[in-house]
Amino acid sequence: MPEFLQLLPPGDALQKFLDHLPAFTPTSEMAPVQAAVFRVTAADIHAPEALPAFSRSTVDGYALHAADSFGASESLPAYLKVIGEVPMGSSPAFSLQRGECAHIHTGGMLPDGADAVIMLEDTQVARPGEVEILKACGMGENIIQRGEDVQDKEIIIPAGVRLNAAHIGGLCALGIQQVQVAAPPRIAVISSGDEVVEPHQTPMPGQVRDINSYTLGSLIHRLGGVAVHRGIVADNREQLTIAVKKAMQNNDAVVITAGSSASVRDLTADVIQEMGAPGVLVHGVNVRPGKPTILAVCDQKPIIGLPGNPVSALVIAGLFIPPLIQRLLGMNVPTMRPYIQARLSINISSQAGREDWIPVRLLDDGQDGWIAEPIFYKSNLIFTLAKADGLLRIPSAANGLEANQMVQVNLLQ
Amino acid sequence: MPEFLQLLPPGDALQKFLDHLPAFTPTSEMAPVQAAVFRVTAADIHAPEALPAFSRSTVDGYALHAADSFGASESLPAYLKVIGEVPMGSSPAFSLQRGECAHIHTGGMLPDGADAVIMLEDTQVARPGEVEILKACGMGENIIQRGEDVQDKEIIIPAGVRLNAAHIGGLCALGIQQVQVAAPPRIAVISSGDEVVEPHQTPMPGQVRDINSYTLGSLIHRLGGVAVHRGIVADNREQLTIAVKKAMQNNDAVVITAGSSASVRDLTADVIQEMGAPGVLVHGVNVRPGKPTILAVCDQKPIIGLPGNPVSALVIAGLFIPPLIQRLLGMNVPTMRPYIQARLSINISSQAGREDWIPVRLLDDGQDGWIAEPIFYKSNLIFTLAKADGLLRIPSAANGLEANQMVQVNLLQ
Repeated sequence: MPEFLQLLPPGDALQKFLDHLPAFTPTSEMAPVQAAVFRVTAADIHAPEALPAFSRSTVDGYALHAADSFGASESLPAYLKVIGEVPMGSSPAFSLQRGECAHIHTGGMLPDGADAVIMLEDTQVARPGEVEILKACGMGENIIQRGEDVQDKEIIIPAGVRLNAAHIGGLCALGIQQVQVAAPPRIAVISSGDEVVEPHQTPMPGQVRDINSYTLGSLIHRLGGVAVHRGIVADNREQLTIAVKKAMQNNDAVVITAGSSASVRDLTADVIQEMGAPGVLVHGVNVRPGKPTILAVCDQKPIIGLPGNPVSALVIAGLFIPPLIQRLLGMNVPTMRPYIQARLSINISSQAGREDWIPVRLLDDGQDGWIAEPIFYKSNLIFTLAKADGLLRIPSAANGLEANQMVQVNLLQ
Repeated sequence: MPEFLQLLPPGDALQKFLDHLPAFTPTSEMAPVQAAVFRVTAADIHAPEALPAFSRSTVDGYALHAADSFGASESLPAYLKVIGEVPMGSSPAFSLQRGECAHIHTGGMLPDGADAVIMLEDTQVARPGEVEILKACGMGENIIQRGEDVQDKEIIIPAGVRLNAAHIGGLCALGIQQVQVAAPPRIAVISSGDEVVEPHQTPMPGQVRDINSYTLGSLIHRLGGVAVHRGIVADNREQLTIAVKKAMQNNDAVVITAGSSASVRDLTADVIQEMGAPGVLVHGVNVRPGKPTILAVCDQKPIIGLPGNPVSALVIAGLFIPPLIQRLLGMNVPTMRPYIQARLSINISSQAGREDWIPVRLLDDGQDGWIAEPIFYKSNLIFTLAKADGLLRIPSAANGLEANQMVQVNLLQ
């Protein structure tokens, strides 16, 4: 096809795009910790204090001097005087002398003088106020030392980390109530096409409703970005130029879905090329669906041109938009794309040298596993994808995949 | 341990819990389609019209009567008269007679009389107004028929489906603007323990801040539920009874994290048991961490008792809360838990007969793969989990895992 100078494999195309993205410091804002899950830290977070703040027991048993248990066994127990019980939620009012111990619960604060805890199961009450120690206990056994989880002033979470539930717990444990996070990147979305109308409009014969703005908007939202809808633009050089220029002004990136005909695709590439250096980096990716993809960086702004076909647009968006949004959030980590392993139901052929993405349904195999059933489709049928659970990748080196082979399925989200 | 009547494997425990959950019809509410990604449909959605609404071309080329191309080849082309061009976004003003064709673009509306489209590459302009057809073309070739994606009134998305970006696109394509979705289930979260204080408080010696309410709250939020914080309750039978009763009244499920000492765990189980039939179904799960887990259904309400240890609580919540929330959202599908495949960095031993979950860091292996590096930890250190990327499961049948073995890692979220 004359319009594609060079078809790049998707992995190479992504690398070229990322290599040309400028260093980006996201705008930051404060968020309450309790609502900060999935947000990305915009600065290193330091511990304001040590955690735990006091040494405590990890079991139910007796706090003691470990040395008092040395040599103890079932046949030759050590005898210790029980001088009290450590109350939960306050500090013990006593300290231990040699030969003494104190009853303690999981989480209880270690009394002064104690350096270990022996488990209840390894003791036996001798008589009121005295306990038999049936096993030797090492120094530090069954206790967590003050500061063992976190040291005072330690960096507990660096900048650029997506906060999960465990991070939120760690921040709460330290009494941190606000956290500096990256503002959601603003991704402008432009839908181009003379035949495209808004979803709330009734299309005239020959017209179709805009799908791409909302599939892409949903994806961007799920990834932690904000989709800024810039509406529908006619297949016209001047109008598209104005629309892209405006979209670049107040947003962090621009995504354009172009009409599907060859002439309109060329128009989009030409318009993007004039938006600044270095311009179009990739025009044509060796993937199906989605060959006519454009990746560009113009005047520091990433711009992606997607095919107009809604199935192609969403498949390609899934390849390039997650790493872009990660970068705009200040995350300098490789994208982790979890998948479901499944057994392929039938043979699928594909063209070697091209990466294929096939929509599949996942069926429970009744044995804790999954069967991947490919859905074959004509171009442009959005409900093919709406009926799929995920996408199956056929690597470019393969001529196809065989029935019963184990395959990796990325869930649609 | 005397307090556990029977340790169930986690899979069996979950099945027993789900089997006892009452049939549940979630409250439903209307949501604008454009903001409905990740919501769950509360009713079947029917197509209000056929899609596409008109037959259209999937390529750039010429619309024609397929019969006019029969027998055509490069050496013996068919000659057709070009009577016009189909404009994008409106219906063609002409219809085709035999021997005639019309220029058409991808997505263009098929003119009356045409029953196929031949690709531009398979044609050659003979002279102005006439084109050579270099290949025979079958009826229906390169077109999508009216209604081929969706038939009028067809169920396009059944009730109980979590909407993804492709679904949102399909709804937009049909002009559907509002969708009936399940209201987020309300999960009451109670933290119990004499030593626990609110995260904004400064703990006295022996006290710790509440972590579990917020790790669980974050998880519930990410799963599409609403965490209703019912605060911290002392380890006291009367107060815990009152707190659980109240929590059951206005919420769809209750999660209690109990103190970690054996006596407090028993107290929680006793209190739950009195909340109604069938009561405690599982007390003790053969998993590490998290053995003292309680699963109950009381008076139609699911109740989960989690260990007080924040690491155990979050690991166990990850096993039982996602399927519970799915059920409360009206989703009757098995939970899909995508994972990352990684190479284990070292040998890990484990006790056969018990399922182990190990926090791991994922390191890029520089060759498009991942290395899973286990993080060993003492009980109760929340930052162990905060430093992990995911959890690695050692099945109960295994005595451990070997270095360099490929393992499955579930990402923390």
